[in-house]
Amino acid sequence: MATKLNSRDTKTIKRLQELADGVVELAGKKRDPFVDVPTRSLSNVKYNKARRFIEMGKNTNRRQLFNLSQAKTYMQTMLVASGVTQLLEQGKTTSIRGLYYLLKHTIEGTKEETFADQGECDPVIEDCEVLLNSLREELHLYAQKRGEMVGEIVLNDSGDEIDCSRMGSGGYGIPSIVEPSVIDFKRCNAKFILHVEKDTVWQRFNEDKFWRKHKCILTHGSGQPPRGVRRMLHRLHDELKLPIYCLLDNDPWGYYIYSVIKQGSINLAYESQRMAIPDAKFIGLRSKDFEECKLSDSVKISLSDTDRKRAKQIASYPWFAQKKDWQKEIKRLLDNGFKLEVEALISKDISYVTEHYTPERLKAKDWLD
Amino acid sequence: MATKLNSRDTKTIKRLQELADGVVELAGKKRDPFVDVPTRSLSNVKYNKARRFIEMGKNTNRRQLFNLSQAKTYMQTMLVASGVTQLLEQGKTTSIRGLYYLLKHTIEGTKEETFADQGECDPVIEDCEVLLNSLREELHLYAQKRGEMVGEIVLNDSGDEIDCSRMGSGGYGIPSIVEPSVIDFKRCNAKFILHVEKDTVWQRFNEDKFWRKHKCILTHGSGQPPRGVRRMLHRLHDELKLPIYCLLDNDPWGYYIYSVIKQGSINLAYESQRMAIPDAKFIGLRSKDFEECKLSDSVKISLSDTDRKRAKQIASYPWFAQKKDWQKEIKRLLDNGFKLEVEALISKDISYVTEHYTPERLKAKDWLD
Repeated sequence: MATKLNSRDTKTIKRLQELADGVVELAGKKRDPFVDVPTRSLSNVKYNKARRFIEMGKNTNRRQLFNLSQAKTYMQTMLVASGVTQLLEQGKTTSIRGLYYLLKHTIEGTKEETFADQGECDPVIEDCEVLLNSLREELHLYAQKRGEMVGEIVLNDSGDEIDCSRMGSGGYGIPSIVEPSVIDFKRCNAKFILHVEKDTVWQRFNEDKFWRKHKCILTHGSGQPPRGVRRMLHRLHDELKLPIYCLLDNDPWGYYIYSVIKQGSINLAYESQRMAIPDAKFIGLRSKDFEECKLSDSVKISLSDTDRKRAKQIASYPWFAQKKDWQKEIKRLLDNGFKLEVEALISKDISYVTEHYTPERLKAKDWLD
Repeated sequence: MATKLNSRDTKTIKRLQELADGVVELAGKKRDPFVDVPTRSLSNVKYNKARRFIEMGKNTNRRQLFNLSQAKTYMQTMLVASGVTQLLEQGKTTSIRGLYYLLKHTIEGTKEETFADQGECDPVIEDCEVLLNSLREELHLYAQKRGEMVGEIVLNDSGDEIDCSRMGSGGYGIPSIVEPSVIDFKRCNAKFILHVEKDTVWQRFNEDKFWRKHKCILTHGSGQPPRGVRRMLHRLHDELKLPIYCLLDNDPWGYYIYSVIKQGSINLAYESQRMAIPDAKFIGLRSKDFEECKLSDSVKISLSDTDRKRAKQIASYPWFAQKKDWQKEIKRLLDNGFKLEVEALISKDISYVTEHYTPERLKAKDWLD
């Protein structure tokens, strides 16, 4: 939804102006224009034990106009900043692909393109995010839109009241941008959020109206949840104090999805503060479930070499490394030699996952943290 | 949504019973049980010029129990039929992955699995669809859920009233199963449907409230639309007599998406009758648009060898082969040597596509058929 110049947009524009003023000031003093961009590399990322998420360190890289190897990136940085200023001033949003097309042109009098391809534009967008300390969404840029929501909450989306308990079998498509300028929470009867990995599992829970019986909100992100879904979960958790339980496959990919929801992503550590949910719980599937749920051999899927490698990597993440339960979980996966999908529970009964597995685990508080 | 035993379910169960009765009858007469499965191969698919979609021929393959090479597939066919009967009787739905898990087990007294993997189960599901002359959705099986909808229509989804003109920036997630047992159209003020390829383009049109200004329904399918979206478009077109305009990229993939929406898919020809929309129009992007919209060289993307090969294949499809306009369109793409994304129009202006391109093409009836 086109957002008017609300207080947050005004703040973002102010930051953009300060950036521009800095350039003008240096030029006026006949000094080399530069910007100091916080370093977005693994070396400048660390796990903050107190805050329990991944965050960026304080290193920056200076980017100068009068430096042959930096001049182009400097120009691109200013170009992206001017593009998002245009979006903010017009009250419009676009995709990162859209911004790329908006800014791509041949520099006058040369054959040089501002950006060779999208791959050259994306890191500069991320630079601008850290430089301006603004989420991409605050720069009016949106990521791919995936994931849906139903349950015991009423919200306002761009002036429309959305009652998530009256969304039929289809559900409410979670927007890419869910900042307070777009989404307001109105009334909430939910006691928790159940986030599932796949749309197919979500359909099972929605069909069985699990969210009505258990007073919750039900979301999915079609695999690794996109930014809109993560930010929505973060806001629901942070503002409405709703606990979050994740129902994911028993494989390294499921662990990794949980890790990103909980601790943030390593690549985009600067956004953790407003995306990561350190209190999110992993209710399953777990390596013990093959035995505990008395599943048949038929549902086993052998671990591949990549699975084994990924599982070991994940076990060594600082936020898993010191957790005995997680070490046990991952060790057992490796010992089992097989992985399990949530859908494997269907072999017990079509609604086993909604009528037994999930309610029993929630009741017993049987989850991993 | 769990569907009660409505008239359509009753009809499907009746067909399943007839299938089962046939087996019992033959066994009672001490004759070999068999089923005649309509052949789902390219050789049995043809383009029906009068009906203007791809349809199956009349060839069938006999599948016998007492035939070493067919016994396993015969068993699997009966197993799938019994699985979907279970779904129908319980009023539940599941994914094809779910059905696979429901049916996968070790055959008693052997080490033989009913299905080795999903790849062995999927074709048998398709066999059952043609055998029973029922869409997958009528067998209570759902495909992946993707795609969203907003616009001038109110519908009922499983008892909930969904006003698609009050869905904010998020939109209504199009269900996998949109059969009349789940979805009823209530009120419609729309004069047409605009179907766009990507969620990002959809967001631009929704943000600009194009559907309100032009009284339409706006849908996307995140690339190649899944079955739910195609069936929804078909029902909207067929029952509400709404014309459909497709806004897709100017590349072979965009052409192919249009081809599937319009004529049906070659692999699943048996469903064309209830999925294909022969009257769907292609409003763009078109190969002439680079010149006509005065785009800059920056937005060109060179055709790859695969693109060229695919473009030629598509040009030879029977439903394109005899259309001069389409031959010209594809020839010009090849002559251009580049493709164009819808987002390329952003280089003109953020809202060029919603304020100029689309309204002007619609007004001039400038589209391909």
